[in-house]
Amino acid sequence: MLFKGKKRISVGIIGGAGYGGTELIKLLLFHPHASLTFVTSRKYSGLRIGEVHRFLRGLTHLAFVEPDIEKFPSDTDCIFLATPHGISMNIVPEILKAFPKARIIDLSGDFRLDNPLVYKQYYGKEHKSPALMKNFVYGLTELNRENIRQARYIANPGCFATGIIFALYPMVKHDFIQKDVTVVSVTGSSGSGEVPKDVTHHPMRAKNFRSYKILEHQHLPEIEKFFKDSFSEWEGEIGFIPQSGPFVRGIYTTVSTYNDRISEKDVKDAFFSEYGDEKFIRIVGGSPEITMVYASNYVEVSSVYKRNFVIAMSAVDNLVRGASGQAVQNMNVMFGFDEDEGIQFPGMRP
Amino acid sequence: MLFKGKKRISVGIIGGAGYGGTELIKLLLFHPHASLTFVTSRKYSGLRIGEVHRFLRGLTHLAFVEPDIEKFPSDTDCIFLATPHGISMNIVPEILKAFPKARIIDLSGDFRLDNPLVYKQYYGKEHKSPALMKNFVYGLTELNRENIRQARYIANPGCFATGIIFALYPMVKHDFIQKDVTVVSVTGSSGSGEVPKDVTHHPMRAKNFRSYKILEHQHLPEIEKFFKDSFSEWEGEIGFIPQSGPFVRGIYTTVSTYNDRISEKDVKDAFFSEYGDEKFIRIVGGSPEITMVYASNYVEVSSVYKRNFVIAMSAVDNLVRGASGQAVQNMNVMFGFDEDEGIQFPGMRP
Amino acid sequence: MLFKGKKRISVGIIGGAGYGGTELIKLLLFHPHASLTFVTSRKYSGLRIGEVHRFLRGLTHLAFVEPDIEKFPSDTDCIFLATPHGISMNIVPEILKAFPKARIIDLSGDFRLDNPLVYKQYYGKEHKSPALMKNFVYGLTELNRENIRQARYIANPGCFATGIIFALYPMVKHDFIQKDVTVVSVTGSSGSGEVPKDVTHHPMRAKNFRSYKILEHQHLPEIEKFFKDSFSEWEGEIGFIPQSGPFVRGIYTTVSTYNDRISEKDVKDAFFSEYGDEKFIRIVGGSPEITMVYASNYVEVSSVYKRNFVIAMSAVDNLVRGASGQAVQNMNVMFGFDEDEGIQFPGMRP
Amino acid sequence: MLFKGKKRISVGIIGGAGYGGTELIKLLLFHPHASLTFVTSRKYSGLRIGEVHRFLRGLTHLAFVEPDIEKFPSDTDCIFLATPHGISMNIVPEILKAFPKARIIDLSGDFRLDNPLVYKQYYGKEHKSPALMKNFVYGLTELNRENIRQARYIANPGCFATGIIFALYPMVKHDFIQKDVTVVSVTGSSGSGEVPKDVTHHPMRAKNFRSYKILEHQHLPEIEKFFKDSFSEWEGEIGFIPQSGPFVRGIYTTVSTYNDRISEKDVKDAFFSEYGDEKFIRIVGGSPEITMVYASNYVEVSSVYKRNFVIAMSAVDNLVRGASGQAVQNMNVMFGFDEDEGIQFPGMRP
Repeated sequence: MLFKGKKRISVGIIGGAGYGGTELIKLLLFHPHASLTFVTSRKYSGLRIGEVHRFLRGLTHLAFVEPDIEKFPSDTDCIFLATPHGISMNIVPEILKAFPKARIIDLSGDFRLDNPLVYKQYYGKEHKSPALMKNFVYGLTELNRENIRQARYIANPGCFATGIIFALYPMVKHDFIQKDVTVVSVTGSSGSGEVPKDVTHHPMRAKNFRSYKILEHQHLPEIEKFFKDSFSEWEGEIGFIPQSGPFVRGIYTTVSTYNDRISEKDVKDAFFSEYGDEKFIRIVGGSPEITMVYASNYVEVSSVYKRNFVIAMSAVDNLVRGASGQAVQNMNVMFGFDEDEGIQFPGMRP
Repeated sequence: MLFKGKKRISVGIIGGAGYGGTELIKLLLFHPHASLTFVTSRKYSGLRIGEVHRFLRGLTHLAFVEPDIEKFPSDTDCIFLATPHGISMNIVPEILKAFPKARIIDLSGDFRLDNPLVYKQYYGKEHKSPALMKNFVYGLTELNRENIRQARYIANPGCFATGIIFALYPMVKHDFIQKDVTVVSVTGSSGSGEVPKDVTHHPMRAKNFRSYKILEHQHLPEIEKFFKDSFSEWEGEIGFIPQSGPFVRGIYTTVSTYNDRISEKDVKDAFFSEYGDEKFIRIVGGSPEITMVYASNYVEVSSVYKRNFVIAMSAVDNLVRGASGQAVQNMNVMFGFDEDEGIQFPGMRP
Repeated sequence: MLFKGKKRISVGIIGGAGYGGTELIKLLLFHPHASLTFVTSRKYSGLRIGEVHRFLRGLTHLAFVEPDIEKFPSDTDCIFLATPHGISMNIVPEILKAFPKARIIDLSGDFRLDNPLVYKQYYGKEHKSPALMKNFVYGLTELNRENIRQARYIANPGCFATGIIFALYPMVKHDFIQKDVTVVSVTGSSGSGEVPKDVTHHPMRAKNFRSYKILEHQHLPEIEKFFKDSFSEWEGEIGFIPQSGPFVRGIYTTVSTYNDRISEKDVKDAFFSEYGDEKFIRIVGGSPEITMVYASNYVEVSSVYKRNFVIAMSAVDNLVRGASGQAVQNMNVMFGFDEDEGIQFPGMRP
Repeated sequence: MLFKGKKRISVGIIGGAGYGGTELIKLLLFHPHASLTFVTSRKYSGLRIGEVHRFLRGLTHLAFVEPDIEKFPSDTDCIFLATPHGISMNIVPEILKAFPKARIIDLSGDFRLDNPLVYKQYYGKEHKSPALMKNFVYGLTELNRENIRQARYIANPGCFATGIIFALYPMVKHDFIQKDVTVVSVTGSSGSGEVPKDVTHHPMRAKNFRSYKILEHQHLPEIEKFFKDSFSEWEGEIGFIPQSGPFVRGIYTTVSTYNDRISEKDVKDAFFSEYGDEKFIRIVGGSPEITMVYASNYVEVSSVYKRNFVIAMSAVDNLVRGASGQAVQNMNVMFGFDEDEGIQFPGMRP
């Protein structure tokens, strides 16, 4: 099914310099129902995309442009924001004014929460468009599909949040968490973005493993909000420990809770009933592996019940499923395309 | 203080081909109070150590020999067993007969437990010397030092168990664990030994992250035994998830429990009171880092208390602190040498 | 243009278990003009492809089958051989008998040479089908395209040979090599295949860099043959040093020769005139980078002339351009499809 | 033999913040005949060394100080400069004035050349102390030992230069290079220093391989000068291609030249006669391996002669043999200590 008779919708990206933006450019250039018409970047404005990211040379004649909203093509159907946190809350109001009919998919954290106080606590700044926060639908596709289908504005989930919610969802829905659950989630270095920093300096990162923002990472409130929105009675306590590992792509999540009132079959059934029919979600025996979802939109999940512990694990590619791939998946849902259009790349071995 | 007036004790290694054995050879060759007099290896018997491990060329004239116990030097003071699990339980009885006065330090898992049924459950074979199991003292040096000082036979802890116990000990001793505790511990590939396997095949391992032996790893019972021996009333439930990461050396452990009856100060005080005076244990703010203990006998630990979760973390080098370094540390304690002799190497940057 | 009016040709793979075979399965499953109808594997016979390589789960219902040539579908148009060296020379005669009209693309080294004595010298075994050696066309697509278009049987180039020839070709054609040229080419670990070995054991490989088969690698004679076939007067001496580096995918090649009779412009012009119009070949300033061709069929080349040295460099993905991608490219050329069908994946960042 | 009856000489480091400086601090803290009395760092001034580099915590009470030469202890015997290029040429004159009897070992490139014009060409700035350039002795220990023994001021070789000269020396001395020689040398990321940059950003570096400063690296003139100083008739042309690989420590060098007038025995004999008696130089069959010299002062070399190509290879640790270890070795030679004091660490496996 196509969008209003158009073979291709017209799409643009605000913030195309970073890793998420680059991946998004690539996915949209190959998408059969999208025409990428503009990509902004203050840093690279005026340079051709293929000059900056030479693996895209020859695939597009587009050059990066300044983020002048009034200059975007007037027939734009969908605008992606792949800007750092704190940017989209400033420009979304302008977009709404200039493109009242366009759909918006924000990959940043600005519209994932609905409470500006919580936003300030976790992101360290005042929210500039608090009235708009409730207008965005959380874009965890498989678990919020019907709302996404009706949505005009999508808050695309954080990369950690994506991996964590897929592991936790069957446990929360089926009430396996008696009180508290521990979440340990390890990310590759690409999650830190394209600007070199101490924590992504190869001499140290290549041999290191560490935790950071322990129990205070900004993806925690979007996870809690998602579960409270989905299950109003939910009262669990989530102990989230983010970690960084010496690999480039992928997030591996382990969640663990203690429950002596259920059985192994309950746990297996819960995961199967939630995910058994989902194309992009692979239920695996043993362990998910980040190498099996590398560069793809797939999610691997598994679960174990033993010694009264319920363990669930997930693996996602942080840049595809944790950012741009899921953004395209949400676009597909919103515009009525096949959900896997443009994001079918299955990964590779090795 | 020297051992019985000798400047150097006479030591030997059974099983010098693997990574733990190689590290042990290196440490003992440089030890100021030990003379390495024999190293066995069926695989390399007859070859000079420096031919097999060329980074040791020029440091010793020793060649690997067959493990013929009757041919070991009669004045041997200390025998290290760096054999795979299931070997030392067969040969310790012979050693006891041939060298009744020698000290023994077994790096394998054979004498870490005292219950042959549990051994069979976790190691998959009958224990051949069940009567000797209780004769071995668990060699987690800082936490069992007085027993080690009196001991003749040491069961050197497993690498995971070492990292995990250092993270858990203050929490158990100070009774922070109300019921259950989650333990997630990630090891580098050297923990799998020197024989190539699918899980250490570089094309896959270099990009991968996965869990294995979830809730059934063989280091769990030695951890439980250690805490039950140390605190007879201990009844906690440990949910241990071993993981493998794409790095070579190091084990990073995260433990997490929920406790709404304590304070951040309680947690900090507990770690400080247990470890504040220990040379080899570094209490750090933020996170331990495996790169900071690389190739050294040091242990890094840290703790966080927030949102009612108690989190503790540790980092060790699996081959030094998790095997051969701690074995030498135990030798030092048993023979009255300075505890850090021969294992002072502090690591490197980067 | 389609093949004889068929929308899709019928293709099969002999030897689908290895890395090259797996990549080939993936590429053919997504190819718009090919239907993959069988994949053989003695090791995995009877198992579904998606069970063995779970990143392909859901993309095909095919199971691996035994290599029984008489059971292959009778309408097979093209057979790929992704077997180890020494296999296809035995089974190609059978294929020719059973499928006289099928095209064959052999990814192994068996039909890249035309002299059985040289084959024996470099591959260590007698060639079993010497009479067929001359029937195969060397499948270095851009540099042998017209022959490939007419060919029925393709010998797909070796991974090193691919990277090396792309770097050397303009230098040879334009006669820059006065006498000798040094070739240093570094491969990632996936080039060693899927079976774990000492040289791909992660604990060692992850920190190592080494040379092997120095001046005697089996890809040397196919490089020499290619240049002698292309330029009958060619008499250069190639000093080829293969190396292995601590990365998974990619081959980086450096070639260097001394020539005091040419100019920088000569060198730049040579590369531009040979490659300027090729979609899959990117001439870059500075250095090629393996990360820029990762998982893609693209080739990066660059050249430098300074201090009388001519330096050329190339980067390819060993499993795609160095094996399965180029095989599909050759299929496209043989069957008259667009040359980039099914192999357009441009890589990723990072 | 001790220095003027002192059990320990008094040493200091100017520039202790970088990787080379950190390694030097570690080596000197454990050196049996040196007392480290000061370490300067503008960046970390006032902080304890163990606070900044926590793997050194507990090993020294020293804090970093400002580089105020007049405040250095008056009995300082040896001053190491581990500053970036362009610093020591400014401060050496002050040191000479304040500490006329102290020995100086400069790890930077400032005093490795004797021609200020060449310095400017390669380092991009005017040399500020051209008159002092000739006063420094090149500190490639084994190949300049007698000059070093008499020297007061040492220019410690560059990391690339160290690896390259060890591979080239027997070839040059024995006149194997008829005209030109190709040098390809790959460095790990620690060679780029402690400040994060694009080329050491983990997401890119971890999968990449590239060349840079092709035929124009600043280590080339010190290599040429060394050979011209050693062999006045030397007229070879060196084509030096520096490369960066995805590993942390180590430099692997390959040199290749064409010579049809010699034999394999000539080549083997040349390497054996130059290096056969050197403790720190291991002649190996096959290939040197960077993992075998990891974190050590050892050098591995090997050679191959076949098809008229002479190939030599070397592996060094860039931070130890390529910087601080060799600096300590030079100190040992200058002060008459055993040459291996303080730098005996043999590496590790894996």
